Amino acid sequence: MSLTFENITLGQRVLFGYGRAAQHLSTEVDRLRARRVMVIAAPPEAGIADRVTADLPVVLRHSDVRPHVPVEQADAARAAAAECGADLLVCVGGGSTTGLAKAVALTTRLPVVAVPTTYAGSEATNVWGLTEASRKTTGVDDAVLPVTVVYDSELTLSLPVDLSVASGLNAVAHCVDSMWAPRANPVNQAFAMEGLRAVADGLRRIVREPDAVDGRDATLYGCYLSGVAFASAGSGLHHKICHVLGGAYDLPHAQTHATVLPYVLELNAPGAPGAAHRIAGALGSATPVAGLNALRKELDAPRALADHGMRREDIPEAARLILPYVPPDNPVQAGIEELTDLLTRAWSGEPTRDGDTA
Amino acid sequence: MSLTFENITLGQRVLFGYGRAAQHLSTEVDRLRARRVMVIAAPPEAGIADRVTADLPVVLRHSDVRPHVPVEQADAARAAAAECGADLLVCVGGGSTTGLAKAVALTTRLPVVAVPTTYAGSEATNVWGLTEASRKTTGVDDAVLPVTVVYDSELTLSLPVDLSVASGLNAVAHCVDSMWAPRANPVNQAFAMEGLRAVADGLRRIVREPDAVDGRDATLYGCYLSGVAFASAGSGLHHKICHVLGGAYDLPHAQTHATVLPYVLELNAPGAPGAAHRIAGALGSATPVAGLNALRKELDAPRALADHGMRREDIPEAARLILPYVPPDNPVQAGIEELTDLLTRAWSGEPTRDGDTA
Repeated sequence: MSLTFENITLGQRVLFGYGRAAQHLSTEVDRLRARRVMVIAAPPEAGIADRVTADLPVVLRHSDVRPHVPVEQADAARAAAAECGADLLVCVGGGSTTGLAKAVALTTRLPVVAVPTTYAGSEATNVWGLTEASRKTTGVDDAVLPVTVVYDSELTLSLPVDLSVASGLNAVAHCVDSMWAPRANPVNQAFAMEGLRAVADGLRRIVREPDAVDGRDATLYGCYLSGVAFASAGSGLHHKICHVLGGAYDLPHAQTHATVLPYVLELNAPGAPGAAHRIAGALGSATPVAGLNALRKELDAPRALADHGMRREDIPEAARLILPYVPPDNPVQAGIEELTDLLTRAWSGEPTRDGDTA
Repeated sequence: MSLTFENITLGQRVLFGYGRAAQHLSTEVDRLRARRVMVIAAPPEAGIADRVTADLPVVLRHSDVRPHVPVEQADAARAAAAECGADLLVCVGGGSTTGLAKAVALTTRLPVVAVPTTYAGSEATNVWGLTEASRKTTGVDDAVLPVTVVYDSELTLSLPVDLSVASGLNAVAHCVDSMWAPRANPVNQAFAMEGLRAVADGLRRIVREPDAVDGRDATLYGCYLSGVAFASAGSGLHHKICHVLGGAYDLPHAQTHATVLPYVLELNAPGAPGAAHRIAGALGSATPVAGLNALRKELDAPRALADHGMRREDIPEAARLILPYVPPDNPVQAGIEELTDLLTRAWSGEPTRDGDTA
């Protein structure tokens, strides 16, 4: 059987180093010859942002960051960027902050340097997202891909363990979902499995010792790979489900991903034996679902959508909203019945069917 | 211990598919809106080139391709590109052909679409090389990176087994040398080891069954990864040695790499235990040298520089020429004595010291 695939690699620079964000940012601003930097950081990251951008020619600090990038916030930030004459966007924060910087880049074409403080991974993708009237729209544009990512795991030390776990499991979801996503290929599958190994290892270390640099480094490194894999492979069923849920019910992004993943894995694994075998191997387990459950147990992972504000009566509507987004080449059938069943179980946090370690 | 690295990922599109080169080339020419294609292919590849470019708007077929890209041939090709008003270079062939296209792109800034027919891997790098007065100069410029690579393993079926082996071992050398190259990092090391596994597996299949598509596909896929790893990690000791030998003594590129590699691996492995462990793992062996020797034995690999036209009396000069290029962070000392010893043994093809499987 012959191998046929298309793979697009996105050009990007990564500077990775504990405690080096300020120095690496200076290097990049010089290299890019930027003179007017707009810093985007939400209030909780204001202290970190001030510290790592202290040496930069900052003309504006923008802090109105909301989850899922509401279109109003994006428009306000775009106007602010134009008004201050920014020639570079530096975003310091998690996925929502990176998302806002991408939204600004989408219309202004300004370059972005991203300094992630969570494990969102969106800094490695050319995917943007905007939410309007409770519907999340996503799109792809190379202009929103940060030209450089500055990874400094010291900045993640302040992320509490439970949020680290939720955010890290979001990266695990990128890796797992990449295996059967529409543009899955040997290259991005290799990235996904390298990322999965690193994140699973890193998260286990973080839970045992939250301030250990090696655990933070491994998780952050793995999350970068998860973003690369996701950008290349595209959104599989898992991401389609989570994007609809996030946009329609205002659920927290990382926790939603962390909660939904085992049910998608359980649904898809039988239809994708090769992927299932590799996921199991990367998780050091006999089956992928058992491996994920063992990891989730060790991490005390989020377990029910009900805990994050979704109502039981939303399930039928959610299934209908998701249906048109099911990838046509998903490895198994995912119609209204399967989606309703999956959502019902994710809503209540009921154990997966083959998961006696859950 | 914290993890510090810089990684630059080069943006590139890959279209991979057995028997699909013509179709994929058409797609790319349309996407790039090219209207005047200059095709570069050496006479032995003329038939393949005619076939895969039959549907393209070709304005010139250029066939004066020489090993190591002599500066005279590069200048002639550049003049020809200007004269015919080319807006796209399509190269069909091995490393020398890709190298000539890169040399033209270097000065003309024309985009390149590469169709490799060997396992050279240079189509995935932004490295150019030119030879003038027996000295090979190399440099880095993103303009020489092919925007798209069209991989079609059907085009490699005509590559005889011995040349497939030499060319494939050149890719193995990219992977191995990447592990301690100046910009080695976790990302390109992961690529290198994925590539090494694929090439080693693919070459074994090719030797057993030269026309089997799966062996050709695996080798070609692995060689792509080897090129990516090499472009990112840079030239380690092995490549420095081979570039000097190739430029100064007109040795065949792939055979030189295939012959020199075990001696570099033997020299460096004790100073790079982590890399050695991973190389051994990827080769399915207890030690990296034993693994490489076992592979080389199964492939009946080239074994002595003497067989490729190097004279014994060239060794002292070669060692002196190589010395200034030894990477400062090579894992072990590589002075005149070590280089002379290495070259002497590679010249005669004497067994590596820990290699009783050789």
